[in-house]
Amino acid sequence: MRKSMRKGHSIAQVAGNGLLDRRALLGRGAIFAGAIGTGAGALNGAAAEPLADGPWSLEVGNVIPPYQRPSPFEKATVRTVDNPNNEPHNSRARTPHHLLKGIITPGGLHFTICHGGVPDIDPAQHKLVIHGLVKRPLVFTLEALERYPMVSRIGFVECGGNSAPLFSNEPIQADVQALHGLASCSEWTGVPLSLLLDEAGVDPKAKWIVAEGADAPHLSRSVPLAKIMDDAMVAMYQNGARIQPGQGYPMRLWLPGYEGNMNVKFLRRVQVTDQPALTYYEARTYSQILPDGRAYRFYFLQEVKSFITSPSPGIKLKEPGIYEITGIAYAGTGRIAKVMVSADAGRSWAEAALQEPRLPKAFTRFRMPWRWDGGPAILQSRAWDEAGNMQPTREQFVALRGQTSKPPSVLGFPSQHFNAITSWAVDGKGDIRHVYA
Amino acid sequence: MRKSMRKGHSIAQVAGNGLLDRRALLGRGAIFAGAIGTGAGALNGAAAEPLADGPWSLEVGNVIPPYQRPSPFEKATVRTVDNPNNEPHNSRARTPHHLLKGIITPGGLHFTICHGGVPDIDPAQHKLVIHGLVKRPLVFTLEALERYPMVSRIGFVECGGNSAPLFSNEPIQADVQALHGLASCSEWTGVPLSLLLDEAGVDPKAKWIVAEGADAPHLSRSVPLAKIMDDAMVAMYQNGARIQPGQGYPMRLWLPGYEGNMNVKFLRRVQVTDQPALTYYEARTYSQILPDGRAYRFYFLQEVKSFITSPSPGIKLKEPGIYEITGIAYAGTGRIAKVMVSADAGRSWAEAALQEPRLPKAFTRFRMPWRWDGGPAILQSRAWDEAGNMQPTREQFVALRGQTSKPPSVLGFPSQHFNAITSWAVDGKGDIRHVYA
Repeated sequence: MRKSMRKGHSIAQVAGNGLLDRRALLGRGAIFAGAIGTGAGALNGAAAEPLADGPWSLEVGNVIPPYQRPSPFEKATVRTVDNPNNEPHNSRARTPHHLLKGIITPGGLHFTICHGGVPDIDPAQHKLVIHGLVKRPLVFTLEALERYPMVSRIGFVECGGNSAPLFSNEPIQADVQALHGLASCSEWTGVPLSLLLDEAGVDPKAKWIVAEGADAPHLSRSVPLAKIMDDAMVAMYQNGARIQPGQGYPMRLWLPGYEGNMNVKFLRRVQVTDQPALTYYEARTYSQILPDGRAYRFYFLQEVKSFITSPSPGIKLKEPGIYEITGIAYAGTGRIAKVMVSADAGRSWAEAALQEPRLPKAFTRFRMPWRWDGGPAILQSRAWDEAGNMQPTREQFVALRGQTSKPPSVLGFPSQHFNAITSWAVDGKGDIRHVYA
Repeated sequence: MRKSMRKGHSIAQVAGNGLLDRRALLGRGAIFAGAIGTGAGALNGAAAEPLADGPWSLEVGNVIPPYQRPSPFEKATVRTVDNPNNEPHNSRARTPHHLLKGIITPGGLHFTICHGGVPDIDPAQHKLVIHGLVKRPLVFTLEALERYPMVSRIGFVECGGNSAPLFSNEPIQADVQALHGLASCSEWTGVPLSLLLDEAGVDPKAKWIVAEGADAPHLSRSVPLAKIMDDAMVAMYQNGARIQPGQGYPMRLWLPGYEGNMNVKFLRRVQVTDQPALTYYEARTYSQILPDGRAYRFYFLQEVKSFITSPSPGIKLKEPGIYEITGIAYAGTGRIAKVMVSADAGRSWAEAALQEPRLPKAFTRFRMPWRWDGGPAILQSRAWDEAGNMQPTREQFVALRGQTSKPPSVLGFPSQHFNAITSWAVDGKGDIRHVYA
């Protein structure tokens, strides 16, 4: 006996096209989603058919391994990689947001971009040097840094080029992993860089630092000293354990809320300076081209953003009924204050539940129950940060920042810091695709 | 030039034997721990010796893999397994707390105990049945549960037998992984079990549920209905991704703050009853034997506890100077309110810094800077929860609960719910061992 929707229609709508009141939904014995009645009493005595033993219930299980891996049934829960043969250009691996449902990204699935592959750094040989406009140039081994006062913080990293396909003047048909997979969130632990700079003694003339990695491209980025002294971290741990290779093992610069490329991985040098270096990556790939051909010289902040992770393209709705709309919101400015969700392309909106803890500069998960009536729907989310900044519509965004017919990898066209609303269209068959609405 | 301790001695002590004021330490250019001066100016021009390129800086790195693994240099960061040949008894894998520095335990390192190995469950075949004292017995597929309103929560799971070696009447020489490695902390996401029971319609006579797993032993435990309706979760996600095999893939019961064994993994049945079942595991292994030979019939709560993870046995202090003492505290009752640290076996104490967010029924990381003068020291931590409960001394604890000369695995002797203070003795060589103090 299918019970879907049996009571669902009596639950109050809070916005058009089936958005439901989560508080009204909870705690009232509503029938949600496809639970199957077993026939009254059938299971009160001997176990009936639904409790038939699978083969795994009839034999001894596997040995417990020293380092646990996900179930073999989760083989599809992986990053998509775009340079599997390690050709001499950059490489990306994207987080499968459509398969994740918390705020933490497991280390195995954190997005990675490298411009010269992932180096195998011997942590016993690696050193971090602080020099330039300081009283005492210093060099730190990992062992020395381990003795410093540390801090932990849950926060996101997002590539400035995340969501670049949405600059396309036609909606590119791809899933949330391909469109938004260059953002992830971890618990980072390390030493505040301000502490190390205090120890080195910063010259009053200093205004910037230039951070350099130990990877082959020696990736270098300039960062304003004010940001460094505010909340920059030399991160050595990710989700409790030593940082993953693709996140900069054995240490990275972490700049909460600033574009990913500035969070220099494999960190080996912090040069304190009175001006930015205009390094290769900050002057080229990660510049923001504007519609009039000029470019922002610097554009560091990842602004308020959200997207729905489920339902999303590739997740088929098999039957009408109640579903949970869920996604993530984040802002480089601080905490998420509010997320609104629409099922009718923005004609009406309802406020989503935000999962606590809402941490500054971290993913915040939002949720909204929805009754799909089997007809077309366009799902959108829109976030606000605590400073009052609102995620723009795509129309508002491209009016200021431009759009392009070029693929997102072509230089000289806008590709950076896309943070506008994403729209998923559900059709009458329950298939979902990316649209502009 | 070694600078350790050059300024360290001028920093205010806050308790005996070198505990330092963290706030005074930060932001004043103190010299902490083994940073090496490079010689003034040596690095302001061309890179000097410390920036010599390692081989990883001179060649293209590795290809980025779809599922990322820790660095090959972190091979020691694994769980210790005590039944590698999967012999027909229980098996344990312990979390390496001495190598971790946050509150999240990565999925690969979360502790696991299985009583019949780790089953390989096909999630498409697995079903969860709710029956017994309900109006409508129901069966849920994973696909159906995916549509329900979910919640996420960061919280710990701890085996009731964690720290059992500390019941020994002589301090067992082992590291923090062996002594306290059966506790871990994750972000769990799933459906509140109360929601599913509301849907099934609980009979007013119901007072308990009996949860059963789909593993070969069909591990079963009774849980008071009040706990289930308060905060029990059918957890399907761990740190964002689908739950790990050793944590109950594809779903487990999660009871925040209750002993690990009750958090039934591979959950396939919730029978609503008017009395506990007194199942094998609740009547045998996880009973708490008291000194007079009686046993607590039920003892579910994991009480307030803390231990220092670093420095700890196996981590040698190579030279006098400043170190960070750090560890974890947690309480099944709620939030941690305070952690005090001693370096002189409890003669004097200072309050540790607690890392935010302090979440209820979750690990809280504490930190305390310490100047080791090269002499003997005994390091301890002691936690309080927000309800005012205080972690007992070992002396207080064993007076009530007993101690034993038997190894912790021998049945009939006290082995459950040890939450007293742990003491690490540092000797004049910087070696650390487990003591009673």
